[in-house]
Amino acid sequence: MPTAKNNAPKNNIDLFDYDAKNFIEKRVKSIDDCIPYKNTPSVTWINIDRTPPLAFLEKLQLGFDLHPVIVEDITGPNQRPKVEILDDYIYVVFRMLTIDEEHKKVMSEQVSLVLSHKFLITFQQNVVGDTFEPVRALIRKPTTRIRHLDTDYLAYELINSVVENYFKILEYFSEKIEKLEQEIITNPTSRNLNHIHSLKRGLLSFRKSIWPLREVIGILERGESTLIKKSTRIYLRDSYERLIQVIDSVETYRDILSGLLDVYLSSVSNRTNSVMRVLTVITTIFMPLSFLAGFYGMNFTNLPGMHTSYGPAVVTAIMLVIMVIMLSYFRKKEWL
Amino acid sequence: MPTAKNNAPKNNIDLFDYDAKNFIEKRVKSIDDCIPYKNTPSVTWINIDRTPPLAFLEKLQLGFDLHPVIVEDITGPNQRPKVEILDDYIYVVFRMLTIDEEHKKVMSEQVSLVLSHKFLITFQQNVVGDTFEPVRALIRKPTTRIRHLDTDYLAYELINSVVENYFKILEYFSEKIEKLEQEIITNPTSRNLNHIHSLKRGLLSFRKSIWPLREVIGILERGESTLIKKSTRIYLRDSYERLIQVIDSVETYRDILSGLLDVYLSSVSNRTNSVMRVLTVITTIFMPLSFLAGFYGMNFTNLPGMHTSYGPAVVTAIMLVIMVIMLSYFRKKEWL
Amino acid sequence: MPTAKNNAPKNNIDLFDYDAKNFIEKRVKSIDDCIPYKNTPSVTWINIDRTPPLAFLEKLQLGFDLHPVIVEDITGPNQRPKVEILDDYIYVVFRMLTIDEEHKKVMSEQVSLVLSHKFLITFQQNVVGDTFEPVRALIRKPTTRIRHLDTDYLAYELINSVVENYFKILEYFSEKIEKLEQEIITNPTSRNLNHIHSLKRGLLSFRKSIWPLREVIGILERGESTLIKKSTRIYLRDSYERLIQVIDSVETYRDILSGLLDVYLSSVSNRTNSVMRVLTVITTIFMPLSFLAGFYGMNFTNLPGMHTSYGPAVVTAIMLVIMVIMLSYFRKKEWL
Amino acid sequence: MPTAKNNAPKNNIDLFDYDAKNFIEKRVKSIDDCIPYKNTPSVTWINIDRTPPLAFLEKLQLGFDLHPVIVEDITGPNQRPKVEILDDYIYVVFRMLTIDEEHKKVMSEQVSLVLSHKFLITFQQNVVGDTFEPVRALIRKPTTRIRHLDTDYLAYELINSVVENYFKILEYFSEKIEKLEQEIITNPTSRNLNHIHSLKRGLLSFRKSIWPLREVIGILERGESTLIKKSTRIYLRDSYERLIQVIDSVETYRDILSGLLDVYLSSVSNRTNSVMRVLTVITTIFMPLSFLAGFYGMNFTNLPGMHTSYGPAVVTAIMLVIMVIMLSYFRKKEWL
Amino acid sequence: MPTAKNNAPKNNIDLFDYDAKNFIEKRVKSIDDCIPYKNTPSVTWINIDRTPPLAFLEKLQLGFDLHPVIVEDITGPNQRPKVEILDDYIYVVFRMLTIDEEHKKVMSEQVSLVLSHKFLITFQQNVVGDTFEPVRALIRKPTTRIRHLDTDYLAYELINSVVENYFKILEYFSEKIEKLEQEIITNPTSRNLNHIHSLKRGLLSFRKSIWPLREVIGILERGESTLIKKSTRIYLRDSYERLIQVIDSVETYRDILSGLLDVYLSSVSNRTNSVMRVLTVITTIFMPLSFLAGFYGMNFTNLPGMHTSYGPAVVTAIMLVIMVIMLSYFRKKEWL
Repeated sequence: MPTAKNNAPKNNIDLFDYDAKNFIEKRVKSIDDCIPYKNTPSVTWINIDRTPPLAFLEKLQLGFDLHPVIVEDITGPNQRPKVEILDDYIYVVFRMLTIDEEHKKVMSEQVSLVLSHKFLITFQQNVVGDTFEPVRALIRKPTTRIRHLDTDYLAYELINSVVENYFKILEYFSEKIEKLEQEIITNPTSRNLNHIHSLKRGLLSFRKSIWPLREVIGILERGESTLIKKSTRIYLRDSYERLIQVIDSVETYRDILSGLLDVYLSSVSNRTNSVMRVLTVITTIFMPLSFLAGFYGMNFTNLPGMHTSYGPAVVTAIMLVIMVIMLSYFRKKEWL
Repeated sequence: MPTAKNNAPKNNIDLFDYDAKNFIEKRVKSIDDCIPYKNTPSVTWINIDRTPPLAFLEKLQLGFDLHPVIVEDITGPNQRPKVEILDDYIYVVFRMLTIDEEHKKVMSEQVSLVLSHKFLITFQQNVVGDTFEPVRALIRKPTTRIRHLDTDYLAYELINSVVENYFKILEYFSEKIEKLEQEIITNPTSRNLNHIHSLKRGLLSFRKSIWPLREVIGILERGESTLIKKSTRIYLRDSYERLIQVIDSVETYRDILSGLLDVYLSSVSNRTNSVMRVLTVITTIFMPLSFLAGFYGMNFTNLPGMHTSYGPAVVTAIMLVIMVIMLSYFRKKEWL
Repeated sequence: MPTAKNNAPKNNIDLFDYDAKNFIEKRVKSIDDCIPYKNTPSVTWINIDRTPPLAFLEKLQLGFDLHPVIVEDITGPNQRPKVEILDDYIYVVFRMLTIDEEHKKVMSEQVSLVLSHKFLITFQQNVVGDTFEPVRALIRKPTTRIRHLDTDYLAYELINSVVENYFKILEYFSEKIEKLEQEIITNPTSRNLNHIHSLKRGLLSFRKSIWPLREVIGILERGESTLIKKSTRIYLRDSYERLIQVIDSVETYRDILSGLLDVYLSSVSNRTNSVMRVLTVITTIFMPLSFLAGFYGMNFTNLPGMHTSYGPAVVTAIMLVIMVIMLSYFRKKEWL
Repeated sequence: MPTAKNNAPKNNIDLFDYDAKNFIEKRVKSIDDCIPYKNTPSVTWINIDRTPPLAFLEKLQLGFDLHPVIVEDITGPNQRPKVEILDDYIYVVFRMLTIDEEHKKVMSEQVSLVLSHKFLITFQQNVVGDTFEPVRALIRKPTTRIRHLDTDYLAYELINSVVENYFKILEYFSEKIEKLEQEIITNPTSRNLNHIHSLKRGLLSFRKSIWPLREVIGILERGESTLIKKSTRIYLRDSYERLIQVIDSVETYRDILSGLLDVYLSSVSNRTNSVMRVLTVITTIFMPLSFLAGFYGMNFTNLPGMHTSYGPAVVTAIMLVIMVIMLSYFRKKEWL
Repeated sequence: MPTAKNNAPKNNIDLFDYDAKNFIEKRVKSIDDCIPYKNTPSVTWINIDRTPPLAFLEKLQLGFDLHPVIVEDITGPNQRPKVEILDDYIYVVFRMLTIDEEHKKVMSEQVSLVLSHKFLITFQQNVVGDTFEPVRALIRKPTTRIRHLDTDYLAYELINSVVENYFKILEYFSEKIEKLEQEIITNPTSRNLNHIHSLKRGLLSFRKSIWPLREVIGILERGESTLIKKSTRIYLRDSYERLIQVIDSVETYRDILSGLLDVYLSSVSNRTNSVMRVLTVITTIFMPLSFLAGFYGMNFTNLPGMHTSYGPAVVTAIMLVIMVIMLSYFRKKEWL
């Protein structure tokens, strides 16, 4: 799974500020423009895409009182999904997986989330796809549940959008495995083996990306921080169960791939066996016949029946009998 | 395991309302007809088959005060078995497995169960079979234990009917494996491998359906909700043990299938070996003989014994000696 | 492991009633005859063999105040070993394994045990063997420890007799594996594979029978019921350790069987290799010789040396040289 | 992974003593020169390289009140990573892994760390590389965080430098595996197998070195000793997550290597299969042709068509027909 | 790992009684001679070798107030390592492994240890070696730590001597595996497979002997009995870590052996492949040549070029061309 590369020079900052009645959505130029929204009673969501430069982060750290270790983690490229509960906020990092429709590849990008009482900041790399769009759509509608609830519910919706998207990755693997299975059962070729190997690697990488998230959601759901309200926990529990379902399926797919490898390897053995059978049948039939012809090719002058007119007919008859016996023997052995 | 499809347009609602003395069983037209039974002191069981339309569910949610997440889970098609304990009710989802006798397939459908103090609602897809029928029969009889006990015991009976039915699925697999084992030991063919593979997939799918139920029953049995009375726990513990037994057997079957794969693969190796032996014996016997015949077929005029009358007899005798030596050598090597 | 069948129509009831001074042993006709002994201060052991009829069990349930679920478990044929601690008694079910000396098979039967303050009831199927006999012998002697202690110690002695008997089953497997190992290392045949497979199945079945007993004895030993006195726990701990030892050995045997399979499969590969070597050596030696003979068999009139008297000798010499070179080449390659 | 050998006769003692304002760095001659710094309010770091002689250690033990077992552990050559929390200090031992650029090998050396309230002693073997250099650079700068914090933060920085260096080892393995994968997929040779085997051994050794460190950092992070301040725990938690990430990757690499072995083994099977196909095609085509030639080589005088002028042409035509039929048969079977 | 047999009729009793000032070492005739030392304030160590007769044990039981189950365990031949904490003493049983230098075998014997406040009794079978000798040497010296401490420290020293000796067993396996690895990589033979199998069995047996000791030392170290003083725990923790290190290494060795099996099996495949290649090359070259020779051996009178003087030269030239084409083809395919 290639990591999505960050090839755009500048990062965008999108700000949402909403409560049940009011709603602001705008793209801001600088992090300073976000500070005023920080302590308003409305929910503030700041989404920053592409890894920001150092100066940007320092401003962010001071403006939102972030721990230096958290800022280092946001910029670190290959974080393992984890949650860090601090006094005033929760830091969560996980992996958003999307399918690059063009190249038919799974793309992986790192998402960091800082959840505080009245604001929530997300960092993503945003190259191929973005699973947050449905959440934005929900916020824009005034009657949705999200508009009446707090930052913790927003965090749940964002995490959940990522978890739900994992099912698409599952489907991607499922289709590939299904197709491979068809091929291997009907007509196995040596290319299948490389497919099995690359699917296995893909699943390993998929599992590595999502497995630690299990614990992350578990920690949030158990309410180890008061930032997560009790009413939100049932939603997180639901996400947790969905994630477990994804993990279960990944394990099942790995077992199926192992089974496919056995089927493939065995088909190679079977093919070798059938090649050997052809060789053996041909050799076993023609060796005695050739010997008999060679016998009568010896330059003795008095081989039995050599000078008779029925000689060739008798020898040919003997050859035919040998051939028939051999063929019926192999038929009985089911080699033909 | 194909998921049972829902191809009927309308869903049925069956209502049972009973206590030790009274008993009502009727098919109602609308969910509104059930509301009056909701808070009666008698036990009310509402069974809804086929996934209901959205309007239906909204009415249900309001009428029975269900959490929106629960209603989403009821309609979600492929839930992992789980339990959700809320203040006023318990939500359980699990998988009912039945055998489609006609197509000899294992069918899987999702069953949701909402257990409250005085009512219990079940949702099922009801296509092929239904394991709840024996429970209905029990309710109809006035002297049974179920008539004297509460909704929690009814929930146990429903869950238990599903667990007991898993043993039929086990038997289905057991018979298939037994038959396959016979075939592989007596006369292995390349079709066996595909059978092993498809049985393995079937068991993986079976295990995925039942494994999480273990935890579900465990949570109910430990009495984390006061809706489950202490007297019912011993029954749930029994179901739990039965389920563990099913899971143990599935694991054992998987180990047996792995063993069968080894037996199959080894039989292919053995067969290749025996084909090779035939080839080698034939080649080893006839190559020297053919060479000898070829030697005397050379157009030299003074090969040893060429012009003698006993020449052919001597050469034939030498050939026979070679053949006998070879045959006895192969017999000693146990290749014949 | 076949389950011992119950083909006798009637079940026997054996009653022991003893304390340090007094001792009664008798076969009673009906369960009613046992009731009077129920609450005496002496220890009462009622052993019932073969699964009793329903009427019998109902009488038993009433006479000894048993929970209906327990009575169902006693009659259920294939219970997983478990313990159920109730207020007034403990119910334990486990599997007694015996070797049918005649058919050289491991027989499995289910044993249920109901332990109360002053009585203990056991149910067994009693077809082939019975591991309880040594316990009966101990009870008959007035000076033994068992005569001075309570029902919990009697329960320990009964369970322990079953655990100790597992070592005989271990020995049975150990001998079979040892013999198989000898065969596979010295002269592997295709029958060995089926032996490995059937031993693996046997061990799987053995493990399934004893593994859950571990937890059962653990629960008893931790003293979760006051029916088990503190002084008895050290004995149960001893049984527990013995059982762990059996389970460890079963795991080791399974690892050894996997190793044997590798040895077997590799020996098949080695044999195929050596067959191929014979074929290759013979072919490689005789093909050039036959070609040379064929060359001089061509009906040209002016092949080199054809009309000389030393022609045959030279050709034969060339053939011998080729043969010697080939043989020494193969010797160097260690193919001969 | 060879253990770095200690071939230098004398060990160096480097002393750092610093607080926010002052900073001393010097190489001292004897352990006695360190004692005065022991209880100063500034942080004292003593780094000792190469295993010191016994006399040295005795002086150290007395001077710093170390437990005799700790001193034994420092000198013991192959300690498993562990932590020992005593009343006045914490003893940690772990493995520093570095890459010997010259020989392209992973070198492993043991690092011991004694952390007390105001001093910290480290022992290392210092042969190839040293991961502590970046930490020294931080100490030398007056404005760094490390200058304002205590010994526990210094200990974190030292441990973290070792953990961060593990990523270089990961990269080393990653590159080797990537290269091997390319080779095996494009052109597998028998040398690949030895590479797989040696990489597997390397990963086993790597995992053995780092796996126990997980628990060590976990113990420190949970704050079981008051020597670790609360503010330092978040840093240790970060190191912990990084280490878990390394361990996850090692497990993934092991899975990939297992997959590569399957690909390799299967490619050998495929190659054998293709060799067999060539053999079989050649044999199957030429055996009947040779037989036919042999047939007409028999010394009968009246073989059919023998004396006709078109005889050779007919026989040759028959031979060509046989050859064409065979070739098209093999093409259809995709053996050509 | 054969269990050391007890073939000597009589058992020796060695008594040590010491404190910081006094020291007695003597071989006593009867257990009665030990009783007077039982409650002295000095440490008393009684070492009994070879399994003693029943009468002896009864005297011991009474003299030292041992629980009957403990005495049974001492005499039981194949105890699993375990610890039993009683009110007045601790019973530990574990396995001492030694290498029989003469037969190059690992010998296993059972050691029981009864630790009380002021005395310690050990039982061993003492056939080949004895790891306790270094401990005796320590006791004999008046200045050692052991002379100033209590029975719990003596117990630690005895257990530790056994654990330290396990490293010698590790080394024994390590050398064997190293040697086998060399052989398999350079020149694999079929004997290697049996070596792998027997080393695997040896490691299984080794692990079975030491794995439970982990828990035993863990229980002692956690101080569940007041007989183990707090100051001794740090030593036991050290032993514990050392044992874990041994167990880790055993697991690593098992993984390496599995890897070696793969290398071996693959080398067999490679060899079969190379044998097949030789066969195929020879057959493919000589079959067409032999056919051509056979063609000109046909008894037609008008084969092309038959009566020309350049006929043989042309045919020979054709043959050479075929041979060169074939050889260059195989060279290109890297079969030569």
